[in-house]
This record gives sequence, C-alpha cells and structure tokens, in this order.
Amino acid sequence: MTISAFDHPILSGLLGDEELEPLFSARAEIEAMLRFEAELALAQADQGAIPQEAAQEVADLLAGFSPDIAALKAGVAQDGVVIPALIAQIRAGLSEAWRAHLHLGATSQDVIDTGFALRAREAIEILGKRLGRLIQSFESLEKRDGQIEVMAHTRMQAAIPVSASRKIRSWREPLLRHAERLEKALDEVAVLHFGGAAGTLDRLGEKGEPVAGRLAARLDLALPEHPRHSERDGIVAFASVLSLITGSLGKMGQDIVLAAQSEVGEVELAAGGGSSAMPHKKNPVAAEALVTLARFNATLLGGMHQALVHENERSGTAWTLEWMLLPQMIVATGAATLKASELVDGLTFKARSV
Amino acid sequence: MTISAFDHPILSGLLGDEELEPLFSARAEIEAMLRFEAELALAQADQGAIPQEAAQEVADLLAGFSPDIAALKAGVAQDGVVIPALIAQIRAGLSEAWRAHLHLGATSQDVIDTGFALRAREAIEILGKRLGRLIQSFESLEKRDGQIEVMAHTRMQAAIPVSASRKIRSWREPLLRHAERLEKALDEVAVLHFGGAAGTLDRLGEKGEPVAGRLAARLDLALPEHPRHSERDGIVAFASVLSLITGSLGKMGQDIVLAAQSEVGEVELAAGGGSSAMPHKKNPVAAEALVTLARFNATLLGGMHQALVHENERSGTAWTLEWMLLPQMIVATGAATLKASELVDGLTFKARSV
Amino acid sequence: MTISAFDHPILSGLLGDEELEPLFSARAEIEAMLRFEAELALAQADQGAIPQEAAQEVADLLAGFSPDIAALKAGVAQDGVVIPALIAQIRAGLSEAWRAHLHLGATSQDVIDTGFALRAREAIEILGKRLGRLIQSFESLEKRDGQIEVMAHTRMQAAIPVSASRKIRSWREPLLRHAERLEKALDEVAVLHFGGAAGTLDRLGEKGEPVAGRLAARLDLALPEHPRHSERDGIVAFASVLSLITGSLGKMGQDIVLAAQSEVGEVELAAGGGSSAMPHKKNPVAAEALVTLARFNATLLGGMHQALVHENERSGTAWTLEWMLLPQMIVATGAATLKASELVDGLTFKARSV
Amino acid sequence: MTISAFDHPILSGLLGDEELEPLFSARAEIEAMLRFEAELALAQADQGAIPQEAAQEVADLLAGFSPDIAALKAGVAQDGVVIPALIAQIRAGLSEAWRAHLHLGATSQDVIDTGFALRAREAIEILGKRLGRLIQSFESLEKRDGQIEVMAHTRMQAAIPVSASRKIRSWREPLLRHAERLEKALDEVAVLHFGGAAGTLDRLGEKGEPVAGRLAARLDLALPEHPRHSERDGIVAFASVLSLITGSLGKMGQDIVLAAQSEVGEVELAAGGGSSAMPHKKNPVAAEALVTLARFNATLLGGMHQALVHENERSGTAWTLEWMLLPQMIVATGAATLKASELVDGLTFKARSV
Repeated sequence: MTISAFDHPILSGLLGDEELEPLFSARAEIEAMLRFEAELALAQADQGAIPQEAAQEVADLLAGFSPDIAALKAGVAQDGVVIPALIAQIRAGLSEAWRAHLHLGATSQDVIDTGFALRAREAIEILGKRLGRLIQSFESLEKRDGQIEVMAHTRMQAAIPVSASRKIRSWREPLLRHAERLEKALDEVAVLHFGGAAGTLDRLGEKGEPVAGRLAARLDLALPEHPRHSERDGIVAFASVLSLITGSLGKMGQDIVLAAQSEVGEVELAAGGGSSAMPHKKNPVAAEALVTLARFNATLLGGMHQALVHENERSGTAWTLEWMLLPQMIVATGAATLKASELVDGLTFKARSV
Repeated sequence: MTISAFDHPILSGLLGDEELEPLFSARAEIEAMLRFEAELALAQADQGAIPQEAAQEVADLLAGFSPDIAALKAGVAQDGVVIPALIAQIRAGLSEAWRAHLHLGATSQDVIDTGFALRAREAIEILGKRLGRLIQSFESLEKRDGQIEVMAHTRMQAAIPVSASRKIRSWREPLLRHAERLEKALDEVAVLHFGGAAGTLDRLGEKGEPVAGRLAARLDLALPEHPRHSERDGIVAFASVLSLITGSLGKMGQDIVLAAQSEVGEVELAAGGGSSAMPHKKNPVAAEALVTLARFNATLLGGMHQALVHENERSGTAWTLEWMLLPQMIVATGAATLKASELVDGLTFKARSV
Repeated sequence: MTISAFDHPILSGLLGDEELEPLFSARAEIEAMLRFEAELALAQADQGAIPQEAAQEVADLLAGFSPDIAALKAGVAQDGVVIPALIAQIRAGLSEAWRAHLHLGATSQDVIDTGFALRAREAIEILGKRLGRLIQSFESLEKRDGQIEVMAHTRMQAAIPVSASRKIRSWREPLLRHAERLEKALDEVAVLHFGGAAGTLDRLGEKGEPVAGRLAARLDLALPEHPRHSERDGIVAFASVLSLITGSLGKMGQDIVLAAQSEVGEVELAAGGGSSAMPHKKNPVAAEALVTLARFNATLLGGMHQALVHENERSGTAWTLEWMLLPQMIVATGAATLKASELVDGLTFKARSV
Repeated sequence: MTISAFDHPILSGLLGDEELEPLFSARAEIEAMLRFEAELALAQADQGAIPQEAAQEVADLLAGFSPDIAALKAGVAQDGVVIPALIAQIRAGLSEAWRAHLHLGATSQDVIDTGFALRAREAIEILGKRLGRLIQSFESLEKRDGQIEVMAHTRMQAAIPVSASRKIRSWREPLLRHAERLEKALDEVAVLHFGGAAGTLDRLGEKGEPVAGRLAARLDLALPEHPRHSERDGIVAFASVLSLITGSLGKMGQDIVLAAQSEVGEVELAAGGGSSAMPHKKNPVAAEALVTLARFNATLLGGMHQALVHENERSGTAWTLEWMLLPQMIVATGAATLKASELVDGLTFKARSV
C-alpha cells in the first residue's frame, strides 16, 4: 500500500493513467496558474486596465518562470492556498513599477479554480475520446460474438439463454449516455472563475466586466453571468458523471468476472493474472480493477457532495476537500476507461457446451 | 430517534414532506404496480397478444383491487420481491381462462421499476415547481433587500462589504441550473421498463416490440431502444441531481446559520426555535435542517453509486439497495425545498450597524 | 419503494426486524423521554434539589402520560427538537407549584440522548444474544458439514479444495470479535447525558453532581466524568461496530450467493425465492439481503462520521443527522442477524461431484 | 489540484505528514515485503522446513535487494498483485537449488497483508505518541486559559457563558478514548497473515503451524488462531478509529474556526493565513484543515466498510479497494494530529469584552 495508487511507481501499472495523471501533477497545476496570471495581465492590457508594457513584462517573465517549490510549500502551509506565495515570487521578478499590475483584482480562487478548469477540460476531452473508442470496440465485439448464446443470470441464478449481443448492448448503451453527460459537464466545468476578493470584481471598477470577458475569450472558457466561487454544483455534477462512468464500467467488470469464473467459463480473457501460489490460475485482473475503481469513485463522490456545503463567499474547508478528492476521481475514471478497453479488446464469448 | 424521520409522527414536522411522502407509501407503490399490470393487459389486447375480454377482466379487477398485505409481506420475505405473491393474489380473482394473460411476458423488475418511474415522475414535477417558486422568492428578496450592504466572508473571516444581492444570487443561480438538471433527469427516469425475464421480451415473440410501444404510450413513458433493467445510470443520475439540489440548499442554510449568529446578526428570521433550557434563544432551525438534509443526501448518494455495480441481468443485492436509499433521498429533497421556501420567505437582511 | 424499508408494511418482510424496530418507534422514544423526566425528578428529590411531593407528582403524571402528538410535531417543526413542546404539555398537567421542578436544570439534549442510550442498550443486548446464537449455529454447521470438501476461490477463480470447515470458521470468527466490540460499545453508549444548557449543570449549583450521580444510578447508566453532549465518539464508534457486523455478515452472504450459483452448486439453501417470470428459479434471497444490508450500513456510516464535526456545545445540524441515520443502522444490523440465522440454519454444504 | 495531496510537492505543506508518509511509500512497502520473505525463510529453517543454507542465502540476498521497479509495475498490471513478479526477480538471484525454498507455502496476500501490518504498527505507535502530546497540550492550555469566560453556543446561537475549561475538556476527553481505541486497534492490526493459497497452509503440511508460530515471533506479530485473509474486520475497525480521531479533531477545528471569526474573536491564533486579495485577513488555516481532514476520512471510511464484503478466500476487488483508501486515511490522520498540535500550541483564549 502507498498513499496514492495512481502515481505509485508500481501500483500505477494496475490503476494508473499515464495520459491523465500528468494533467494533475504539481507541474501542470503551476503551469495552468501561471497561464492564468499571464492571460489576465494581457486581458487587462487589452482593456486598458493596465499598461501594455506591464502586461508584456508579466507574460515574458511567466513564459519561463520556474517557482521555488519549497517556498510554495511553506506558503501553502501558512496560507492554506499557494497563491500568496506564488504571487510574491513572481512579483519579485518584475520591475517595481509593474508589480501591482500582476494578479490585479484577482483572488486565489480565481487562479486555482480557473487553472483547474483548463486541465479538467483536457481531461474531459480525453475521456470523451476514450468512451468513443470503447463504444466502437463494443460494436466490433457484438459484430463478431453477438450471435453466441450465453446464459442470462438474474439474482445470481441461471435464468434463460440470451444472445451475447444482449449483454454487450447493456454495457455499451450507458456509455452513449455518459458521452452526452460528459459534454454537458464540459459546459459546466470549462468556465472562467474571476471574481476577485468576494466575487464582485470590486477592485477593477467598470473595467471588471470587460476584463473578465476578454480573459474568458483568451482562455477559451465560458463566461458565467456572475462568478461562481461559492457555487460548486458544476464541479460536483462533473464528479457525479465520473462516478456514473466508472459505475457502468464496474458493472461490466463484475459481469465479466462472473462469466469468467472457472465453473461458468462463458468468456475467455486474452490477459489473465498469475498467482504466486497457484500457477494454474488465470485471474480476471482488469475486470476486477473496474469493480474496484467503481467502488472507489462511488466512495469519493459522497465527499464531493458534502463539499457543496461551501459556506459564505469562500470556504477553506469544503474547497480543500475538493482538492483531495476530485483529481483522484478523474484519474480513476481514466484508469477505468483504459482497463475497459484492454478488457473488451481481449474478450471472447464462448458458446455454451450443452 | 426513530427509523425513518420522514414518516415519523413527530419528526416529520421538521423533516417531512406531506406532498411527496404519499408517493412513496406502500399504498402508492401498490397502486402503481396494479396500474402497470392493467395497462399491460390492455396494451397486449390492443396489439392482439391477448384477448380483449381477458384484458378487460384484468383491468376491471385491478380497478378495485385491495391486496392482502400480510401475504405480500410473506411473499417478499420469501422471494425478495413482492411481485410473485401479488400476481398470485390477482390471478386468484380472475377467471381461470384469463389467468395466464395477466403479467404475460413481464417480470418483477418491469413492474417495480416502471411503478417507480410513474411515481418519480410526479415527484420530479413537484420538485420542479417548487424550485420555480423558490427562484421567484429569491427574486422578490433581492428586489426588497438586494441593496443592503452585508459583509462577505472568506475562510470564515470578514472580507469586504458586498450587497445582499451578491449573496442572494449565489443561492438562486444554482437552482436555475438544477431546474434544467431535473428536466433532463425526468427524461431519464420517466422511462418504461419492460423486458421480461432477461430483458429480451422472449415470451412475447414478435408481439414484444409493439406491446412495449403501446404500453409506453398508455403510461406516457419514454420507450428506450432496449430495456434497461441492469443499466441503472438513469436512476443514479437522478439521485445525483437530488443531492446537488439539497447541497445547494444546504449551502444557503449554512450561510444563513452563520449570518444569523448572535454575534453577526446580518439576517433576521421570521421563525426561530425555542430551547427548553434557554428561553432567550431563537434557533435557526429551518436553516440547520437544510444543512442536515444536504449531508444526508450526500451520504446516501454514495450508496446509490455503489448500486451501479448491478451484476448480470438483474441484481438482487444492488437493486434492493436502491429501494432503501432512493425514496429517502427524494423525500429529503422535497423536505429541503419546503424548508428553504419557509426560510427565504421569512428572511430579512439587516443593514450592518457600523 | 417506500420511504423506509424497515417499517414498510410489505418490505419489512425482507428487511425488517420486529424485535428491534419497536425500540425506535415514536412510542418507545416518548416513553424513554418520559422516563428520563420522571427519574430526573425523583433523583432531584433524593438529593434534596426539589421537594419530594413535586417529584412524586411528576412521576405519577408521567406514568400514564399520553402526549398530544400533533402538538409535538408542530413543536419539532418550530424548535428543531421535541422537548420544549413536550415539557410544555407535561407542565400543563402539573400543579402550578411544581411546574418549575420538572426538567429542572436539564436541556433537550439530556433527554433525547439519554432516551436514546436507554433504547440503544436494549438493542445492543438483543444484538449480542443474536450474535451468540449465530456463533452456535456455525458450530453446529461445522460439526455436521465441516468435513465436506469444497473449492476455495481466490480472485473469483477456483483455487484448491479446502474443507467446508475453513469457510465456516471465516464466517464465525469475526463474530466472536464483534461480540467483544459490542460489549465495548455498550460501555460507550449506555451513558447518562446530563449537562444542562451548556454541559455545565449550571442551574443546579452544587446539587448538580449528586443529582447526576443519582440519576445515573436510577437509570443504571454509566456516569461520565463530564457530560459528553458535543463528544459524539461513543455513538459513532457504536455505529462503526454495527457496520462491521453487517459487513462480515454481508461477506458471508456474498460467499453463499456465489456458492449457490447454478453453475457452482456447492451449497443448498432451505429457502429460495421464486420468480414471477421463471418458476424454475430458486433465488438466494436471504444471502442477497445480507449483502444489501452490508452496503447500506457502510453507506450510512459515512454520514455518522461526518456528524462527528459537531460544532460548539450543541450542533443542530450534526445532531439531527444522527437521528436520520443511526436508528436505520441499528435495525439494518438487526435484520442482518435475523437473515443470517435463517440462512445458516437452512444451509447445507454439498460434496463436489468430481 | 494533484492526485494525492499527501505527497504533493506543494500541498503536502498543508496536508502532509513527513513522518508517516514514508511508511507508505513504495520503498517502505518493498522493504516490508522483502523482510517478510527473509524472515519466512529463516523461520522455515528454524523449524526444519527448508535447509539452513537456503534460508541464509535468501536472507543474504534480500538484505541488499533492489528490485527492478519497471518489471514490478508490469507485473502488477498483469497479475493484480506485485508478488509474482517480485518473487521471480528474487528467485533469479538465488542458486537454483534454493529457488523453491523462497516464498514456500506462502501466497501474495501473506506478504502484502503482513507487510502492511508491520508498517501500520509503526504508524499506530506514532499516532499514539502524538495523541499523548496533544492531551498534554490541552492540559497546559487548560491550566493557562481554563478560567477565562467564553460564550457557549448551542445551535449556533450564544447560549450562556462557560469557562474555557469546559471547551478544552470537550476536545481533550475524546482523545483519551481514542488513545485506548488505538491500542485495541494495534492488537487487531499487528497480526501475522500467513495462510498460503487458500488460508490452510496446505503446502507446508505439519510444518505449517510451527513455521507460522516462529514467523510471528520473528516479526513480533500476534498469531491468530486461523489466518484471516478474508476477514477484514481488524483493518476496517482500525480505519474506523482513524476516522474517529480525525472527526474529533475536526470538531475542535470547527469550534476554533467559529471562535476565531472576526465578529466573535474569542480565540487568537498564533499563525494565520494571508490572502492574495485581502492583506488584512488572518485565516484560521490549520483549524480549517482539521475540518477538511475529518470530512475526508469520513468519506473514505465508507469505502473501507464496503470492502468488508470480501468474497470467498480472496477478493481481487475488495482488497485492492483497501489499498486505495487506507494509506490515505492513515496519513490524513497523521496530518490532522500535526495540525492539531500546531493549532493548540498557538491558541489563546481571550476574555470577552463585555
């Protein structure tokens, strides 16, 4: 056991996702935050809120900026968020005249939530493509094996024979709905968070709205009517979709585990795990992992919904709880789509020996 | 404490919903199941799958049918579902010639899941209307009190002054999104479940599809391309929306609890609870209940997502788990909308004494 | 579906517990609260804190007291707790001179938490006896079937043959540990809660401690060093034990469901459920119910642990959340012990046909 | 956001535990597994089950063994557990004559669960010491500030004044009980897992019991009457204790957050976080983190209890779920004890200005 299975040097072989994981590394997080600050400065210059030279200096500095990580760690220990320490570091590299133009009118949550939105968007796009591929794999599987007769089981007892096609469709069709749900989630997640100290952009006066609009355009994010700092429903709805995806894949995993039982043998798996004590065994490892990942996300989702009770204009407690849960849920979902593809691509239905 | 707060003779005063609760009573459940059986017979007759007289006798019998509850209870203890015992009771009241035409081609899950869909639809409509009213209440509140200056709080510390309007919008806007989510959930929940033993309508042969179509039309439910017995994503997505609603209302409740603190006093509540030991107190009972209901639904939602791992063509375990959780979640959501209305209608913002 | 499976007129056949359920009815709750008030008055008289006649009148009145339930319901809606309304009703029946001697120095939480302690103690005793009987049933089963050879399964694949004895012990031994855990939980739950408004018994002055001691003795409850109003660890530790019990029984249920599969057939069940569509089936209903109840309690337990964050001297939100979760968990545990007994008593291992 | 807050290069400043984290690193995990294999070989030699020279060669090789991590990662992807690949690597370094004497009679679960037991024991000891220190800090705090009058709050309203002592005790006393619970958990967790393929030590014949006894002695672990592979109650009871600890500390955190509100000001914190937008603020960061960690553990605990449904002799799904949850819970608990110490040591009660 180690703290996180997802970036564990060994366990990530079973539970990791090498494409999604980097999106939620500290490096990607910092890059997204620096991008926010650079684009903010440029958007402000576009709207005449700060001098063009200030914005350019900020953008130039941030292009190659490599923060002092130890100082950021000390900063987060002190402030609960990394932004004050990060801004201090960046400011130290700016001409004194331009220092006040960095992060102008913004607050920590703007940077962190928007930085997350940028990365979540990429994750959603990747997940969407993978669902698409999975749906195709199911179509190929149905084409090849759909006519094979298998036994339907209800309440864990043999019921009546059905075609493999019936089973395959019950795995594929939820994914069609999940793909739609993911698209809807993208609309809710790929949103600019820019409200300043208390969600009113008070520091920017009448420049607030135009700067926000320009910043959203530069980052290609939607601009909500009002900043949503304390309205967490978009992000929690997204988490729900993640758990719906892993849940449906977990159902498929459970079905395959059951069909692959030694006594049932209705499916054959290309890959099967070995045992250190029993060399004759072929364990349905990928299918099991899908069940595990489903139960994992179902567990964490409860905490995300607890975090909806985000008190006042910004909650230190509920917001931090999201940080501890949501990245794990995203990578778990990614890992599940990878395992599912591996599993389906190696799956063969077998005719029942009567 | 008692087993269920929702239909508890006393606690339901705090946590109940007299409009939604009856939809999930045993009586309503039976009525919905009888309706399914009657409409099924009529739909089959419409499509020539059973004689018109058979259908008419079934419909006539069911119109006034009052089952022996004790026998149903014994039946569910034995079978895990109530349908075999219920069908046996109904059949006993039919002419022998027509007995086989009752429940023809159907299975327990068709009756129970469709019966639930009929009641959930009503619940969703009621919840939708209440969200609409709440949104209006927020508009009225904003019109009256929106200009009052209050203190924004971030991380539980006074931040900067904002208008009450800012707060009210952060409570109202998620509800606009929830209203849309509820509509989408209605599409996913108001669906006919009719698949027979293993989801293939095998007993009805070529009559299967037309009967299903006719039945869906008679019940005014959507007809999915294939029966979704083992695909629980629609119902679980609905549960997620319920928890999103209570979560947002819980956030408002928490905000109001904090604003109503003796030391803060930024809002005044029309109603406040008394204490048996301290008559001077005025407790923010409705606001607290919103937080409780949010945490309650967030808790139960995890179990609904666990139930996505619904093995094979029908799971005795995962399906039963839904029965234990989802009705509670619906009524909790209803109770939250009622408490929220009561709270908002009695809420007054107070100007800060500087 | 209905709101609570436990006291549902039909579903309680599958998921109910007729012995435990009445302990958590509104009637039992009121009786326990009246008992607290009567014993409190008598304890105060014992210690000279109120006149003997006052105590006697209180006790006499409460012996036959039947509160106006509708008024209590209105009271809880207003106050969040039932006690102010209940005390008002009782006081109205007392001589004016003695009215102030009722509930003297106590607060709502004293009455409700102690009332719960009295009922939880009974529940723990019943659960403890049932665990004892289950342990004996496993011993009988092992004696009869222990030598039968069955297949061990690891990772859902046949591993090597083992004796049935190995399986039976893996079901029995956790129960031995749970029985100990229940005893420890009894010590933590069967505790007097008596602290007055803010846990300091301020109203009773120097009579506080002796009255508390006397009251604990009269109710046969432990007297903690300080009142534990806001320290919920005892009750949450108890909830954890409940979920440990249902979890272990759920593991057994899952094992039996798997062993009873049509294709495996290593066990035979005395009782099996019928299907409305497939009369040939024999569903492992009791075993499935154990899995469901395990997942149910595991779900609700999360909410009980959330309720540990019980702010200040009394939380309206966290405390109410307990009321919504813990009684359900207790009855679910009771139902699981009943189902488990039924299952084990009807279980036969079958020799593998080689 | 990143995948794991605990070993995140930045966030670990807020949520990490530099003493506990290394116990759950991949390195520590491998070391514990190698230790198991070495001690197993030596125990077998002690009991004459394998030649002394074989054991010595195993022990010597393992003393400096550095596995090929990439191969282990590929192994776990294939097998679901790391052991087959690890054993293959070690065997390749042994004389051919002794290869079969490595891991003799053991199975993956023996190595992994025992390896975890060794590390969990250390973690429990560290946590126990920290609870002890915290209890002392509360005593010092009470000695210094206990007489200060503060306001008790019930249902988030000012109730009556109490001494700070009352509050401090309500924070300290649960920790006394948790310290006892941790000791009991140690007994349940510090247990040898050694059962071979199906928990019967079948490969070792009559040497099974004496080897197990010797191995337990060498590792200083308790020897259960029968191997507990599929009985997860010990580990889940431990997880429950972890969540009880963070829950109680979260309650203290919440109390301090409330007392430190700008409008309340009953406590002063030595350290407070700054804001990037509002330099005047002093955020109660450590106290907030305690609430977050409490809700985090309460969330994950539900999944640990789901994992009690560990089917058959070894579950690929439920067991893997533990790996994903329990190490996080342990480190979260450690982080909470650190934050709590920091918080209490810097806490000053302030007399109410009347």
